[in-house]
Amino acid sequence: MSLQLDPIGIICSPFTQAAGTPIQASMAEGATGTVEILPAFAAGLKDLDGFDRIWLLYWFDRAVAPKLIVTPYLDDQPHGVFATRAPARPNAIGMSAVRLLRIDNCTLHVADVDILDGTPLLDIKPYVPQFDHLPAERTGWLRQACNRRRTADRRFEA
Amino acid sequence: MSLQLDPIGIICSPFTQAAGTPIQASMAEGATGTVEILPAFAAGLKDLDGFDRIWLLYWFDRAVAPKLIVTPYLDDQPHGVFATRAPARPNAIGMSAVRLLRIDNCTLHVADVDILDGTPLLDIKPYVPQFDHLPAERTGWLRQACNRRRTADRRFEA
Repeated sequence: MSLQLDPIGIICSPFTQAAGTPIQASMAEGATGTVEILPAFAAGLKDLDGFDRIWLLYWFDRAVAPKLIVTPYLDDQPHGVFATRAPARPNAIGMSAVRLLRIDNCTLHVADVDILDGTPLLDIKPYVPQFDHLPAERTGWLRQACNRRRTADRRFEA
Repeated sequence: MSLQLDPIGIICSPFTQAAGTPIQASMAEGATGTVEILPAFAAGLKDLDGFDRIWLLYWFDRAVAPKLIVTPYLDDQPHGVFATRAPARPNAIGMSAVRLLRIDNCTLHVADVDILDGTPLLDIKPYVPQFDHLPAERTGWLRQACNRRRTADRRFEA
């Protein structure tokens, strides 16, 4: 069974290559960008402007082919890809919770962007602390991860 | 441009129809299930067992056709679909942060499941509070949402 996705827009950011792109929205230190929604989907944005933060789901269009074992940016040890947020995934879906600054028609102005310029957008969902702030004590290899880097390098770039 | 997804497994839960299924993992009150990973992807699970909670990304395979305006379970007012978590979305990707109880080979035992039995699994990512607990004061229509329901009904069922 194959499923088909059609992008609903495109993400524009200051980051044109993996090297130097923040690893997570929480490490993006306010970097700003825009999300350009295709006009056909504009009606779906109604009331989105009431939310401070939104999830963007997108396609890692410039990642290398999927790998099952990866050494993520934050460590120098290999881990299963599903235990990481690395882009070289079997279904190359990324997710980032960015700050929503304002909406002008089909353009969303966003901050805390950790996404490459030109990335295809798949979905937007509201970020809701009651749904998304959940208890989780153990965070596996991340607890002892040796790298304190905040930006990507070229290891997953096609 | 169309993108192609191939499921990496299937989610098994006690919920065989939308009516009565919890709306969010945070409302699932411990409901348990399993995630059966296709053997070809098993290597990607290495070190996942170190995490208390995981994101499941999946396909809303039994949702009605996409709508741009929906009345979500938690309200009686219509909103843009991207301002809701409703399943009737242009790219029907769902995401839930479930508790990971244990892993037996290709079977993940999980709790706080708000997903229909038989749902195709697209991706797994670790839930990491440092990445996923982000400040968000304003939560739009949800602030005044009139329904306090915790389970779905048939409104988005195909």
